[in-house]
Amino acid sequence: SRQIAAPTGPERSCKSWLTEAPLRMLMNNLHPDVAERPEDLVVYGGIGRAARDWECFDAIVETLQRLEETQTLLVQSGKPVGVFETHKDAPRVLIANSNLVPAWANWEHFNELDRKGLMMYGQMTAGSWIYIGSQGIVQGTYETFVEAGRQHYDGELKGRWILTAGLGGMGGAQPLAATLAGACSLNIECQQSRIDFRLRTRYLDEQAEDLDDALARIERYTAEGKAVSIGLCANAADVLPELIKRGVKPDMVTDQTSAHDPLHGYLPSGWTWDAYVERGQREPEAVVMAAKRSMAVHVQAMLDFQAMGVPTFDYGNNIRQMAMEEGVDNAFDFPGFVPAYIRPLFCQGIGPFRWAALSGDPEDIYKTDQKVKELIPDDPHLHNWLDMARERISFQGLPARICWVGLKDRARLGQAFNEMVRNGELKAPVVIGRDHLDSGSVASPNRETESMMDGSDAVSDWPLLNALLNTAGGATWVSLHHGGGVGMGYSQHAGVVIVCDGSDDAHTRLGRVLRNDPGTGVMRHADAGYEIAKECARENDLDLPMLDK
Amino acid sequence: SRQIAAPTGPERSCKSWLTEAPLRMLMNNLHPDVAERPEDLVVYGGIGRAARDWECFDAIVETLQRLEETQTLLVQSGKPVGVFETHKDAPRVLIANSNLVPAWANWEHFNELDRKGLMMYGQMTAGSWIYIGSQGIVQGTYETFVEAGRQHYDGELKGRWILTAGLGGMGGAQPLAATLAGACSLNIECQQSRIDFRLRTRYLDEQAEDLDDALARIERYTAEGKAVSIGLCANAADVLPELIKRGVKPDMVTDQTSAHDPLHGYLPSGWTWDAYVERGQREPEAVVMAAKRSMAVHVQAMLDFQAMGVPTFDYGNNIRQMAMEEGVDNAFDFPGFVPAYIRPLFCQGIGPFRWAALSGDPEDIYKTDQKVKELIPDDPHLHNWLDMARERISFQGLPARICWVGLKDRARLGQAFNEMVRNGELKAPVVIGRDHLDSGSVASPNRETESMMDGSDAVSDWPLLNALLNTAGGATWVSLHHGGGVGMGYSQHAGVVIVCDGSDDAHTRLGRVLRNDPGTGVMRHADAGYEIAKECARENDLDLPMLDK
Ligand SMILES: NC(=O)c1ccc[n+]([C@@H]2O[C@H](COP(=O)([O-])OP(=O)(O)OC[C@H]3O[C@@H](n4cnc5c(N)ncnc54)[C@H](O)[C@@H]3O)[C@@H](O)[C@H]2O)c1
Ligand SMILES: NC(=O)c1ccc[n+]([C@@H]2O[C@H](COP(=O)([O-])OP(=O)(O)OC[C@H]3O[C@@H](n4cnc5c(N)ncnc54)[C@H](O)[C@@H]3O)[C@@H](O)[C@H]2O)c1
Repeated sequence: SRQIAAPTGPERSCKSWLTEAPLRMLMNNLHPDVAERPEDLVVYGGIGRAARDWECFDAIVETLQRLEETQTLLVQSGKPVGVFETHKDAPRVLIANSNLVPAWANWEHFNELDRKGLMMYGQMTAGSWIYIGSQGIVQGTYETFVEAGRQHYDGELKGRWILTAGLGGMGGAQPLAATLAGACSLNIECQQSRIDFRLRTRYLDEQAEDLDDALARIERYTAEGKAVSIGLCANAADVLPELIKRGVKPDMVTDQTSAHDPLHGYLPSGWTWDAYVERGQREPEAVVMAAKRSMAVHVQAMLDFQAMGVPTFDYGNNIRQMAMEEGVDNAFDFPGFVPAYIRPLFCQGIGPFRWAALSGDPEDIYKTDQKVKELIPDDPHLHNWLDMARERISFQGLPARICWVGLKDRARLGQAFNEMVRNGELKAPVVIGRDHLDSGSVASPNRETESMMDGSDAVSDWPLLNALLNTAGGATWVSLHHGGGVGMGYSQHAGVVIVCDGSDDAHTRLGRVLRNDPGTGVMRHADAGYEIAKECARENDLDLPMLDK
Repeated sequence: SRQIAAPTGPERSCKSWLTEAPLRMLMNNLHPDVAERPEDLVVYGGIGRAARDWECFDAIVETLQRLEETQTLLVQSGKPVGVFETHKDAPRVLIANSNLVPAWANWEHFNELDRKGLMMYGQMTAGSWIYIGSQGIVQGTYETFVEAGRQHYDGELKGRWILTAGLGGMGGAQPLAATLAGACSLNIECQQSRIDFRLRTRYLDEQAEDLDDALARIERYTAEGKAVSIGLCANAADVLPELIKRGVKPDMVTDQTSAHDPLHGYLPSGWTWDAYVERGQREPEAVVMAAKRSMAVHVQAMLDFQAMGVPTFDYGNNIRQMAMEEGVDNAFDFPGFVPAYIRPLFCQGIGPFRWAALSGDPEDIYKTDQKVKELIPDDPHLHNWLDMARERISFQGLPARICWVGLKDRARLGQAFNEMVRNGELKAPVVIGRDHLDSGSVASPNRETESMMDGSDAVSDWPLLNALLNTAGGATWVSLHHGGGVGMGYSQHAGVVIVCDGSDDAHTRLGRVLRNDPGTGVMRHADAGYEIAKECARENDLDLPMLDK
């Protein structure tokens, strides 16, 4: 099977960096160190793909290589469907993935279209070519654990332990994030291969032989005040109820199995993974039912932990919804991580800002790390993150960095990186993007927009405006997806990536796009009534016509 | 209550025509001759609004008046929420109306948000400021009849007659459209008041006394080759079976009773309208049953006509569904009007193209009519439409014209109009737009995308790409809506309007946008496998990377 790796260095096969960049980032998404199942074009998050199939992948590559500076490529669910004349300040690629008319927006219909070769699941950054491996979620997870520690344990996680499950593309960031936050963690994962991968990349410290062994290790390390992460190969739907039965009390409970996709992402209790995959092809309905029944058991145990006083939260995999559909009426009694810990950041446009070095040279990222410290000198927390990230996180594919910053910083960082490209400090251009999970780019009532102050959780005008505005502002590529994170029917969201090629044009566009994009997040939260957002809008001179009406 | 009318003439209150145009078109949508309930900001189609409320309306107007040439206003469900820096080739307004995350995309949730003041129903052209009154309905119906004539009668409807029913708000356009298409028509309508209204407005020519009289008139006029429309006050569920019994064979059969709403829109056989209304309040279930039983009889007769070889089609009123529920298993044997007649047009990017004269002067429209004839000299149907429209259809609000043209013509018409503005032939700029019901701009599985060849009816990536591309191309305003036409949950669609202000910039943008916009329609249908679309793509040099793969 094919092995893909992005070209590196200063030579291009495309006509400009604005087309070379999406080419490299598409390929980078499929790099064996980045993608979960590159042979199937699956990047992460269940079946989140970078392109619909290999024929489409090849056609995208060919088209990018011939694309002119005033043309725009349209990609429909991972297939390159058209090239149209636009202009130099327009995006070079426009992407719409997995979008379905609402009454048909469910997994059954999607899977039918997927089987027919008419659709592809884009997840968030898989089909929009700005996935950067597990680092992408490490900082978000770290921030979440730290904030939870602040709220529940006076900011001290030493001697505490976190119980979670799922060591996949995203979930695999949990053990490292817990360690960085100072806590031990018990990470349940049903596939040994996933545990192996996390041990190899140093995201996970050790594997326990069984539950007793795991608990013994936890007891020892918490007593010693050491932040060690422990993997356990088992089914979470078995382990959690067992822990409840034994009266074991973790200090925090969450979950990152791929519960959003019961057909591909959640192993029913008592099944092997192979049987799950195989039967899924033959009898999808039965498999979905079995998976959801196990999720109900899993969520019930999480509710029991909450009742014991353990801080328990949903980590954005829609497991509460699935359990509710299976009869767990109070599944939503424990909160999502956004309203619990992340929303105040979103109100300031702060979210998972990221960049990648097209040179392929780690030094380029270290230099940008240094630039960030220079430009934001007064944030020790941020400096600490950059240091720890450099030390503990290996790059996957193209060197990249994630760093949660907001409206007041993104544009000036972007323009500074562009200057570094211009003056030769960096060896090649840099791309700047973010997750779709960001302040102004998503409507997802079970995750990012859960429990909005004004009840506007399900209003998806906002991410659509975000995509339209980023297109108008001159981002390099823009994407509109459906169903990322929480699955078909439950979210709509937009992505943006912009290239720093060192040119004056890039400088101007970066100034617009990296202000407008987080600006829509502040706008959306101000409109919902959040005071922090209103203040942030005023401090940053956002023009919101009805702000004070 | 307030009375709104768009300013006319060459003086502006905004800083450029690119902002004056949306201002005038917003106001035009609320003109008392255009809007159905202007006092509530309702333009058409139930509760389709132009702005969320009067405060929002005022704020939109104020913001447009101060908007700079490099700024873009964002409108979220009829509320102006932000102004951002973009550039001169970006849209001046970006609109997202009524969009909901799919799992919440239903009338209950929408109504709740609407009551809270968080949302607005934008229908198709109400919230996107390009509604032009009932001219649009006449033309759509005309095109349908003409296309049916092309397919079944070598393009000649002279001496032919159409059998239909329903002379309500939409259905009342049928007799006029049939006449314009050159055919006689027999229009069954059970309420005398509806027939009187259509006689008065000259949409209907004559009323017959009874069925024998009606058939005698039809015989006479078809023999004479005259296109006369005849009304008959009767119940369609009685008349159609009687015609079958007599062996009468019309040349085309359809129906526009309000069958979609059996409680309010379809009179059961043997009932008076008053009894129907009165009993509907007391015993809704019984009334619905009676109505649906009659629909089954009605549809059975339509099937019988089809079996006799008469071209028979559903006109978007859901009567097949109702009959099927009443046991007519093969109700869907006759097709809907889109797959039958409109799709071949959509395959060529042909759809409800329209423009309005910001001068307010009807002469400007007559001059553009003339220009269209000049530029498309070889299309007698189009010339016929333009002549008849001028003669038979009164302007409502700003003078406007609708005219179904496609990929090969839109851009050159737009650039010609721009030239007419530049050289002073027209007294002020013109705006060019279209309905959201168009070739590349909508996903609506019960209407525009019913029975797509490849089964991609519900895939809404397409309208999203359409909106993104029109934004990238430099349209003046772009909109993304949900739920227009068929209601919440059942459609997603995009709008576009572009201004001809006579400038070189406008010339360039018109060339892009008016090619790209219908181009996405051709692309979407070519991707679905339609040969006509593939040919059209080749003839017009569309760049579709996987067209031949
Ligand atoms: N909170 C966030 O910001 C955020 C971000 C990204 C993803 N997510 C969500 O987190 C989930 C995980 O994402 P991912 O990319 O890691 O997915 P993934 O599919 O790569 O990994 C899921 C892992 O869960 C394991 N698993 C499945 N069922 C299990 C069970 N019953 N017991 C133990 N392990 C089980 C699988 O073996 C797999 O390794 C998804 O639902 C995703 O949408 C949340
Ligand atoms: N092409 C489209 O997609 C499209 C466009 C517009 C309307 N429609 C559909 O067409 C239908 C008509 O729309 P409208 O706005 O004219 O509705 P309307 O309610 O204003 O008119 C319906 C008319 O049918 C008459 N009628 C009812 N039962 C009858 C019977 N048994 N025999 C004879 N006449 C009868 C009524 O008296 C009324 O005048 C609706 O179902 C609408 O959804 C489809």
